[in-house]
Amino acid sequence: MQDQVSQLAFVTIAAVMEQAYFSMQVIWARRKYKISPPNTTGHPRFDRIFRAQLNCSEYFPLFLSALWVAGIFFHQGFAALCGLLYLYARYKYFHGYAESALGRLGPMYISSSFLWLLIGFSLLGLLDFFLHSYCSVSIRTSISWILL
Amino acid sequence: MQDQVSQLAFVTIAAVMEQAYFSMQVIWARRKYKISPPNTTGHPRFDRIFRAQLNCSEYFPLFLSALWVAGIFFHQGFAALCGLLYLYARYKYFHGYAESALGRLGPMYISSSFLWLLIGFSLLGLLDFFLHSYCSVSIRTSISWILL
Amino acid sequence: MQDQVSQLAFVTIAAVMEQAYFSMQVIWARRKYKISPPNTTGHPRFDRIFRAQLNCSEYFPLFLSALWVAGIFFHQGFAALCGLLYLYARYKYFHGYAESALGRLGPMYISSSFLWLLIGFSLLGLLDFFLHSYCSVSIRTSISWILL
Repeated sequence: MQDQVSQLAFVTIAAVMEQAYFSMQVIWARRKYKISPPNTTGHPRFDRIFRAQLNCSEYFPLFLSALWVAGIFFHQGFAALCGLLYLYARYKYFHGYAESALGRLGPMYISSSFLWLLIGFSLLGLLDFFLHSYCSVSIRTSISWILL
Repeated sequence: MQDQVSQLAFVTIAAVMEQAYFSMQVIWARRKYKISPPNTTGHPRFDRIFRAQLNCSEYFPLFLSALWVAGIFFHQGFAALCGLLYLYARYKYFHGYAESALGRLGPMYISSSFLWLLIGFSLLGLLDFFLHSYCSVSIRTSISWILL
Repeated sequence: MQDQVSQLAFVTIAAVMEQAYFSMQVIWARRKYKISPPNTTGHPRFDRIFRAQLNCSEYFPLFLSALWVAGIFFHQGFAALCGLLYLYARYKYFHGYAESALGRLGPMYISSSFLWLLIGFSLLGLLDFFLHSYCSVSIRTSISWILL
Protein backbone atom coordinates (compact mmCIF):
# COMPACT_ATOMS: atom_id res chain seq x y z
CA MET A 1 0.00 0.00 0.00
CA GLN A 2 2.85 2.42 0.88
CA ASP A 3 4.12 2.49 -2.74
CA GLN A 4 0.77 3.66 -4.07
CA VAL A 5 0.46 6.60 -1.66
CA SER A 6 3.97 7.67 -0.60
CA GLN A 7 4.04 10.80 -2.80
CA LEU A 8 0.50 11.72 -1.74
CA ALA A 9 1.51 11.27 1.89
CA PHE A 10 4.52 13.55 1.36
CA VAL A 11 2.36 16.32 -0.17
CA THR A 12 -0.14 15.83 2.69
CA ILE A 13 2.53 16.44 5.33
CA ALA A 14 3.82 19.45 3.37
CA ALA A 15 0.24 20.79 3.39
CA VAL A 16 -0.06 20.21 7.16
CA MET A 17 3.18 22.11 7.73
CA GLU A 18 1.99 24.97 5.52
CA GLN A 19 -1.21 25.24 7.59
CA ALA A 20 0.88 25.19 10.78
CA TYR A 21 2.94 28.06 9.33
CA PHE A 22 -0.25 30.04 8.54
CA SER A 23 -1.52 29.45 12.09
CA MET A 24 1.74 30.78 13.49
CA GLN A 25 1.39 33.91 11.34
CA VAL A 26 -2.01 34.50 12.98
CA ILE A 27 -0.50 34.05 16.44
CA TRP A 28 2.30 36.53 15.62
CA ALA A 29 -0.24 39.03 14.21
CA ARG A 30 -2.30 38.66 17.40
CA ARG A 31 0.78 39.61 19.44
CA LYS A 32 1.81 42.46 17.14
CA TYR A 33 -1.63 44.09 17.07
CA LYS A 34 -2.47 43.08 20.66
CA ILE A 35 -5.67 41.18 19.77
CA SER A 36 -6.30 38.48 22.38
CA PRO A 37 -8.51 35.43 21.75
CA PRO A 38 -11.49 35.02 21.57
CA ASN A 39 -11.48 38.33 19.63
CA THR A 40 -10.99 37.91 15.89
CA THR A 41 -10.97 41.51 14.68
CA GLY A 42 -9.24 44.76 15.64
CA HIS A 43 -6.78 45.84 12.92
CA PRO A 44 -7.30 45.68 9.11
CA ARG A 45 -4.07 43.73 8.56
CA PHE A 46 -4.89 41.25 11.32
CA ASP A 47 -8.40 40.80 9.88
CA ARG A 48 -6.95 39.93 6.49
CA ILE A 49 -4.35 37.51 7.91
CA PHE A 50 -7.06 35.88 10.02
CA ARG A 51 -9.39 35.50 7.03
CA ALA A 52 -6.55 34.20 4.82
CA GLN A 53 -5.73 31.49 7.34
CA LEU A 54 -9.41 30.58 7.76
CA ASN A 55 -9.90 30.36 4.01
CA CYS A 56 -6.86 28.06 3.62
CA SER A 57 -8.17 25.93 6.52
CA GLU A 58 -11.56 25.63 4.84
CA TYR A 59 -10.06 24.45 1.57
CA PHE A 60 -7.53 22.11 3.20
CA PRO A 61 -9.88 19.07 3.48
CA LEU A 62 -11.27 19.64 -0.04
CA PHE A 63 -7.72 19.79 -1.40
CA LEU A 64 -6.61 16.61 0.39
CA SER A 65 -9.71 14.72 -0.74
CA ALA A 66 -9.17 15.61 -4.39
CA LEU A 67 -5.40 14.96 -4.09
CA TRP A 68 -5.87 11.43 -2.78
CA VAL A 69 -8.68 10.39 -5.13
CA ALA A 70 -6.79 11.78 -8.14
CA GLY A 71 -3.59 10.09 -6.90
CA ILE A 72 -5.17 6.68 -6.35
CA PHE A 73 -7.50 6.59 -9.39
CA PHE A 74 -5.69 8.74 -11.98
CA HIS A 75 -1.92 9.09 -11.48
CA GLN A 76 0.04 9.53 -8.26
CA GLY A 77 2.87 11.62 -9.77
CA PHE A 78 0.54 14.04 -11.60
CA ALA A 79 -1.62 14.46 -8.51
CA ALA A 80 1.40 15.10 -6.27
CA LEU A 81 2.77 17.70 -8.72
CA CYS A 82 -0.58 19.51 -8.90
CA GLY A 83 -0.69 19.32 -5.11
CA LEU A 84 2.71 21.00 -4.70
CA LEU A 85 1.74 23.75 -7.15
CA TYR A 86 -1.53 24.25 -5.24
CA LEU A 87 0.42 24.64 -2.00
CA TYR A 88 2.76 27.17 -3.61
CA ALA A 89 -0.25 29.19 -4.90
CA ARG A 90 -1.75 29.07 -1.39
CA TYR A 91 1.49 30.47 0.04
CA LYS A 92 1.31 33.36 -2.46
CA TYR A 93 -2.40 33.81 -1.65
CA PHE A 94 -1.73 34.07 2.07
CA HIS A 95 0.97 36.73 1.73
CA GLY A 96 -0.96 38.56 -1.00
CA TYR A 97 -4.06 38.73 1.21
CA ALA A 98 -1.97 39.92 4.20
CA GLU A 99 -0.94 42.93 2.06
CA SER A 100 -4.36 43.81 0.62
CA ALA A 101 -7.76 42.24 -0.16
CA LEU A 102 -6.99 42.69 -3.89
CA GLY A 103 -3.62 40.95 -3.52
CA ARG A 104 -5.35 37.66 -2.79
CA LEU A 105 -7.14 37.43 -6.16
CA GLY A 106 -4.35 36.33 -8.54
CA PRO A 107 -3.03 33.43 -6.44
CA MET A 108 -6.62 32.51 -5.50
CA TYR A 109 -7.48 31.89 -9.16
CA ILE A 110 -4.29 29.85 -9.62
CA SER A 111 -4.88 27.74 -6.51
CA SER A 112 -8.50 27.06 -7.47
CA SER A 113 -7.35 26.05 -10.99
CA PHE A 114 -5.12 23.38 -9.50
CA LEU A 115 -7.94 22.24 -7.23
CA TRP A 116 -10.29 21.92 -10.22
CA LEU A 117 -7.55 20.06 -12.11
CA LEU A 118 -7.33 17.56 -9.24
CA ILE A 119 -11.13 17.22 -9.20
CA GLY A 120 -11.09 16.68 -12.99
CA PHE A 121 -8.35 14.03 -12.71
CA SER A 122 -10.36 12.35 -9.93
CA LEU A 123 -13.51 12.19 -12.05
CA LEU A 124 -11.57 10.90 -15.07
CA GLY A 125 -9.82 8.28 -12.96
CA LEU A 126 -13.08 7.14 -11.35
CA LEU A 127 -14.87 7.07 -14.73
CA ASP A 128 -12.08 4.93 -16.17
CA PHE A 129 -12.23 2.61 -13.15
CA PHE A 130 -16.03 2.14 -13.26
CA LEU A 131 -16.12 1.69 -17.08
CA HIS A 132 -13.31 -0.84 -16.78
CA SER A 133 -14.98 -2.71 -13.89
CA TYR A 134 -18.56 -2.81 -15.14
CA CYS A 135 -18.25 -2.49 -18.95
CA SER A 136 -14.69 -3.79 -19.55
CA VAL A 137 -13.97 -0.57 -21.42
CA SER A 138 -10.67 1.22 -20.75
CA ILE A 139 -10.46 4.93 -21.50
CA ARG A 140 -6.67 4.85 -21.18
CA THR A 141 -6.32 2.09 -23.76
CA SER A 142 -8.81 3.80 -26.08
CA ILE A 143 -6.88 7.08 -25.87
CA SER A 144 -3.60 5.26 -26.53
CA TRP A 145 -5.19 3.57 -29.60
CA ILE A 146 -6.45 6.89 -30.97
CA LEU A 147 -3.07 8.54 -30.44
CA LEU A 148 -1.11 5.72 -32.11
CA MET B 1 -6.98 -1.30 -3.11
CA GLN B 2 -9.07 0.62 -5.69
CA ASP B 3 -11.90 -1.95 -5.55
CA GLN B 4 -12.35 -1.52 -1.80
CA VAL B 5 -12.66 2.28 -1.96
CA SER B 6 -13.96 3.25 -5.42
CA GLN B 7 -17.51 4.02 -4.23
CA LEU B 8 -16.17 5.93 -1.22
CA ALA B 9 -13.90 7.90 -3.54
CA PHE B 10 -16.87 8.75 -5.76
CA VAL B 11 -18.93 10.04 -2.81
CA THR B 12 -15.86 11.98 -1.63
CA ILE B 13 -15.53 13.80 -4.95
CA ALA B 14 -19.29 14.46 -4.98
CA ALA B 15 -18.88 15.99 -1.49
CA VAL B 16 -15.95 18.15 -2.68
CA MET B 17 -18.04 19.43 -5.59
CA GLU B 18 -20.96 20.18 -3.26
CA GLN B 19 -18.65 22.24 -1.03
CA ALA B 20 -17.31 24.05 -4.11
CA TYR B 21 -20.93 24.83 -5.05
CA PHE B 22 -21.62 26.23 -1.55
CA SER B 23 -18.46 28.38 -1.74
CA MET B 24 -19.65 29.80 -5.07
CA GLN B 25 -23.00 30.66 -3.48
CA VAL B 26 -21.12 32.69 -0.87
CA ILE B 27 -19.13 34.49 -3.59
CA TRP B 28 -22.35 35.30 -5.50
CA ALA B 29 -24.02 36.54 -2.29
CA ARG B 30 -20.96 38.72 -1.61
CA ARG B 31 -21.39 40.33 -5.03
CA LYS B 32 -25.17 40.71 -4.74
CA TYR B 33 -25.06 42.36 -1.30
CA LYS B 34 -21.75 44.15 -1.96
CA ILE B 35 -19.91 42.66 1.02
CA SER B 36 -16.18 42.55 0.25
CA PRO B 37 -13.74 40.27 2.09
CA PRO B 38 -12.50 40.27 4.82
CA ASN B 39 -15.99 41.37 6.00
CA THR B 40 -18.29 38.48 6.84
CA THR B 41 -21.50 40.27 7.80
CA GLY B 42 -23.69 43.01 6.34
CA HIS B 43 -27.06 41.59 5.21
CA PRO B 44 -29.21 38.99 7.04
CA ARG B 45 -29.44 36.71 3.98
CA PHE B 46 -25.69 36.91 3.37
CA ASP B 47 -25.04 36.13 7.05
CA ARG B 48 -27.17 33.00 6.81
CA ILE B 49 -25.57 31.82 3.55
CA PHE B 50 -22.13 32.46 5.04
CA ARG B 51 -22.97 30.53 8.23
CA ALA B 52 -24.53 27.68 6.22
CA GLN B 53 -21.37 27.28 4.14
CA LEU B 54 -19.17 27.47 7.25
CA ASN B 55 -21.25 24.83 9.02
CA CYS B 56 -21.06 22.47 6.02
CA SER B 57 -17.28 23.07 5.87
CA GLU B 58 -16.94 22.23 9.56
CA TYR B 59 -18.81 18.95 9.18
CA PHE B 60 -17.08 17.98 5.92
CA PRO B 61 -14.00 16.31 7.54
CA LEU B 62 -16.17 14.57 10.17
CA PHE B 63 -18.42 13.23 7.43
CA LEU B 64 -15.53 11.97 5.27
CA SER B 65 -13.86 10.29 8.27
CA ALA B 66 -17.01 8.40 9.21
CA LEU B 67 -17.73 7.58 5.55
CA TRP B 68 -14.34 5.97 4.99
CA VAL B 69 -14.14 4.06 8.27
CA ALA B 70 -17.71 2.76 7.81
CA GLY B 71 -16.93 1.89 4.18
CA ILE B 72 -13.70 0.03 4.94
CA PHE B 73 -14.77 -1.73 8.15
CA PHE B 74 -18.53 -2.20 7.77
CA HIS B 75 -19.79 -2.16 4.16
CA GLN B 76 -18.74 0.02 1.25
CA GLY B 77 -22.12 0.09 -0.48
CA PHE B 78 -24.10 0.96 2.66
CA ALA B 79 -21.62 3.68 3.59
CA ALA B 80 -21.69 5.19 0.11
CA LEU B 81 -25.51 5.22 0.10
CA CYS B 82 -25.65 6.91 3.53
CA GLY B 83 -23.04 9.34 2.22
CA LEU B 84 -25.12 10.33 -0.80
CA LEU B 85 -28.22 10.81 1.38
CA TYR B 86 -26.15 12.94 3.78
CA LEU B 87 -25.01 15.13 0.86
CA TYR B 88 -28.61 15.51 -0.33
CA ALA B 89 -29.70 16.56 3.20
CA ARG B 90 -26.82 19.07 3.30
CA TYR B 91 -28.01 20.55 -0.01
CA LYS B 92 -31.51 20.99 1.49
CA TYR B 93 -29.95 22.41 4.68
CA PHE B 94 -27.97 25.02 2.76
CA HIS B 95 -30.94 26.31 0.79
CA GLY B 96 -33.24 26.09 3.83
CA TYR B 97 -30.80 28.15 5.91
CA ALA B 98 -30.43 30.71 3.09
CA GLU B 99 -34.22 31.32 3.36
CA SER B 100 -34.48 31.47 7.16
CA ALA B 101 -32.70 30.32 10.33
CA LEU B 102 -35.67 28.01 11.04
CA GLY B 103 -35.50 26.51 7.55
CA ARG B 104 -32.18 24.87 8.39
CA LEU B 105 -33.55 22.72 11.22
CA GLY B 106 -35.36 19.91 9.36
CA PRO B 107 -32.53 19.02 6.95
CA MET B 108 -30.01 19.53 9.78
CA TYR B 109 -31.64 16.73 11.80
CA ILE B 110 -31.73 14.46 8.72
CA SER B 111 -28.09 15.12 7.83
CA SER B 112 -26.94 14.52 11.41
CA SER B 113 -28.96 11.26 11.49
CA PHE B 114 -27.00 9.98 8.50
CA LEU B 115 -23.75 11.11 10.10
CA TRP B 116 -24.61 9.19 13.30
CA LEU B 117 -25.57 6.19 11.18
CA LEU B 118 -22.11 6.28 9.58
CA ILE B 119 -20.48 6.62 13.01
CA GLY B 120 -22.58 3.68 14.25
CA PHE B 121 -21.60 1.53 11.25
CA SER B 122 -17.95 2.49 11.84
CA LEU B 123 -18.07 1.43 15.48
CA LEU B 124 -19.86 -1.83 14.61
CA GLY B 125 -17.35 -2.57 11.84
CA LEU B 126 -14.37 -1.83 14.10
CA LEU B 127 -15.85 -3.88 16.96
CA ASP B 128 -16.34 -6.82 14.58
CA PHE B 129 -12.77 -6.44 13.30
CA PHE B 130 -11.17 -6.29 16.76
CA LEU B 131 -13.28 -9.15 18.16
CA HIS B 132 -12.40 -11.21 15.10
CA SER B 133 -8.66 -10.38 15.32
CA TYR B 134 -8.13 -10.75 19.07
CA CYS B 135 -10.91 -13.14 20.20
CA SER B 136 -11.69 -15.02 16.95
CA VAL B 137 -15.32 -14.04 17.43
CA SER B 138 -17.27 -12.79 14.41
CA ILE B 139 -20.36 -10.65 15.02
CA ARG B 140 -21.44 -11.04 11.40
CA THR B 141 -21.36 -14.85 11.59
CA SER B 142 -23.12 -14.80 14.98
CA ILE B 143 -25.90 -12.59 13.58
CA SER B 144 -26.24 -14.84 10.52
CA TRP B 145 -26.53 -17.88 12.84
CA ILE B 146 -29.21 -16.23 14.94
CA LEU B 147 -31.17 -15.19 11.87
CA LEU B 148 -31.02 -18.66 10.25
CA MET C 1 -5.57 -3.31 4.26
CA GLN C 2 -7.78 -3.35 7.40
CA ASP C 3 -4.92 -4.68 9.57
CA GLN C 4 -2.65 -1.77 8.68
CA VAL C 5 -5.20 0.92 9.59
CA SER C 6 -7.61 -0.52 12.19
CA GLN C 7 -6.08 1.36 15.13
CA LEU C 8 -5.91 4.59 13.11
CA ALA C 9 -9.56 4.10 12.13
CA PHE C 10 -10.48 3.65 15.79
CA VAL C 11 -8.71 6.89 16.82
CA THR C 12 -10.37 8.63 13.85
CA ILE C 13 -13.86 7.67 15.02
CA ALA C 14 -12.96 8.69 18.59
CA ALA C 15 -11.89 12.09 17.18
CA VAL C 16 -15.16 12.41 15.23
CA MET C 17 -17.15 11.69 18.39
CA GLU C 18 -15.11 14.23 20.35
CA GLN C 19 -15.89 16.89 17.73
CA ALA C 20 -19.58 15.93 17.88
CA TYR C 21 -19.41 16.40 21.65
CA PHE C 22 -17.82 19.88 21.23
CA SER C 23 -20.54 20.82 18.72
CA MET C 24 -23.21 19.80 21.21
CA GLN C 25 -21.56 21.98 23.87
CA VAL C 26 -21.92 24.94 21.49
CA ILE C 27 -25.60 24.10 20.89
CA TRP C 28 -26.22 23.90 24.67
CA ALA C 29 -24.38 27.21 25.23
CA ARG C 30 -26.52 28.78 22.48
CA ARG C 31 -29.66 27.71 24.37
CA LYS C 32 -28.34 28.73 27.79
CA TYR C 33 -27.27 32.23 26.69
CA LYS C 34 -30.13 32.60 24.16
CA ILE C 35 -27.85 33.24 21.16
CA SER C 36 -29.63 32.08 17.98
CA PRO C 37 -27.78 31.31 14.75
CA PRO C 38 -26.48 32.96 12.61
CA ASN C 39 -25.19 35.08 15.56
CA THR C 40 -21.86 33.89 16.94
CA THR C 41 -21.31 36.32 19.83
CA GLY C 42 -23.29 37.64 22.78
CA HIS C 43 -21.86 36.36 26.07
CA PRO C 44 -18.14 36.03 27.01
CA ARG C 45 -18.49 32.36 27.98
CA PHE C 46 -20.37 31.52 24.79
CA ASP C 47 -17.71 33.35 22.73
CA ARG C 48 -14.98 31.24 24.31
CA ILE C 49 -16.87 27.96 23.86
CA PHE C 50 -17.60 28.90 20.24
CA ARG C 51 -13.93 29.77 19.57
CA ALA C 52 -12.74 26.59 21.33
CA GLN C 53 -14.96 24.43 19.11
CA LEU C 54 -13.88 26.32 15.97
CA ASN C 55 -10.21 25.93 16.88
CA CYS C 56 -10.62 22.17 17.42
CA SER C 57 -12.49 21.92 14.09
CA GLU C 58 -9.68 23.75 12.30
CA TYR C 59 -7.03 21.40 13.67
CA PHE C 60 -9.11 18.25 13.13
CA PRO C 61 -8.06 17.68 9.48
CA LEU C 62 -4.41 18.51 10.25
CA PHE C 63 -4.45 16.03 13.11
CA LEU C 64 -6.04 13.24 11.05
CA SER C 65 -3.59 13.78 8.18
CA ALA C 66 -0.56 13.53 10.45
CA LEU C 67 -2.10 10.58 12.33
CA TRP C 68 -2.61 8.52 9.17
CA VAL C 69 0.72 9.32 7.51
CA ALA C 70 2.60 8.60 10.77
CA GLY C 71 0.56 5.40 11.23
CA ILE C 72 1.14 4.09 7.71
CA PHE C 73 4.79 5.14 7.26
CA PHE C 74 6.20 5.11 10.81
CA HIS C 75 4.31 2.89 13.28
CA GLN C 76 0.59 2.35 13.68
CA GLY C 77 0.64 1.74 17.44
CA PHE C 78 2.80 4.79 18.25
CA ALA C 79 0.67 7.01 16.03
CA ALA C 80 -2.57 5.75 17.58
CA LEU C 81 -1.20 6.35 21.10
CA CYS C 82 -0.09 9.91 20.24
CA GLY C 83 -3.52 10.39 18.68
CA LEU C 84 -5.37 9.37 21.84
CA LEU C 85 -3.18 11.65 23.95
CA TYR C 86 -3.82 14.49 21.51
CA LEU C 87 -7.58 13.95 21.84
CA TYR C 88 -7.31 13.96 25.65
CA ALA C 89 -5.34 17.26 25.53
CA ARG C 90 -8.01 18.71 23.20
CA TYR C 91 -10.69 17.74 25.72
CA LYS C 92 -8.77 19.58 28.46
CA TYR C 93 -8.24 22.54 26.09
CA PHE C 94 -11.95 22.83 25.35
CA HIS C 95 -13.01 22.88 28.99
CA GLY C 96 -10.07 25.11 29.97
CA TYR C 97 -11.00 27.65 27.28
CA ALA C 98 -14.68 27.54 28.35
CA GLU C 99 -13.54 28.73 31.83
CA SER C 100 -11.08 31.44 30.71
CA ALA C 101 -8.92 32.47 27.76
CA LEU C 102 -5.85 31.73 29.90
CA GLY C 103 -7.13 28.26 30.78
CA ARG C 104 -6.70 27.13 27.18
CA LEU C 105 -2.92 27.69 27.09
CA GLY C 106 -1.56 24.67 29.01
CA PRO C 107 -3.54 21.98 27.14
CA MET C 108 -2.97 23.89 23.87
CA TYR C 109 0.81 23.46 24.23
CA ILE C 110 0.37 19.76 25.07
CA SER C 111 -1.96 19.08 22.15
CA SER C 112 0.32 20.90 19.72
CA SER C 113 3.30 18.90 21.05
CA PHE C 114 1.52 15.66 20.13
CA LEU C 115 0.62 17.07 16.73
CA TRP C 116 4.27 17.99 16.08
CA LEU C 117 5.30 14.53 17.29
CA LEU C 118 2.95 12.98 14.70
CA ILE C 119 4.34 15.31 12.01
CA GLY C 120 7.90 14.34 13.04
CA PHE C 121 7.06 10.61 12.92
CA SER C 122 5.46 11.15 9.49
CA LEU C 123 8.56 12.87 8.12
CA LEU C 124 10.84 10.19 9.60
CA GLY C 125 8.66 7.42 8.18
CA LEU C 126 8.54 9.01 4.74
CA LEU C 127 12.30 9.69 4.76
CA ASP C 128 12.94 6.05 5.64
CA PHE C 129 10.56 4.91 2.87
CA PHE C 130 12.10 7.12 0.16
CA LEU C 131 15.71 6.31 1.18
CA HIS C 132 14.80 2.63 1.17
CA SER C 133 13.04 2.81 -2.22
CA TYR C 134 15.49 5.00 -4.12
CA CYS C 135 18.84 4.45 -2.34
CA SER C 136 18.31 1.02 -0.71
CA VAL C 137 19.28 2.60 2.60
CA SER C 138 17.21 1.76 5.68
CA ILE C 139 17.28 4.19 8.61
CA ARG C 140 15.62 1.62 10.87
CA THR C 141 18.29 -1.01 10.16
CA SER C 142 21.07 1.59 10.57
CA ILE C 143 19.69 2.66 13.95
CA SER C 144 19.38 -0.98 15.06
CA TRP C 145 23.02 -1.57 14.02
CA ILE C 146 24.24 1.48 15.97
CA LEU C 147 22.28 0.46 19.05
CA LEU C 148 23.51 -3.15 19.02
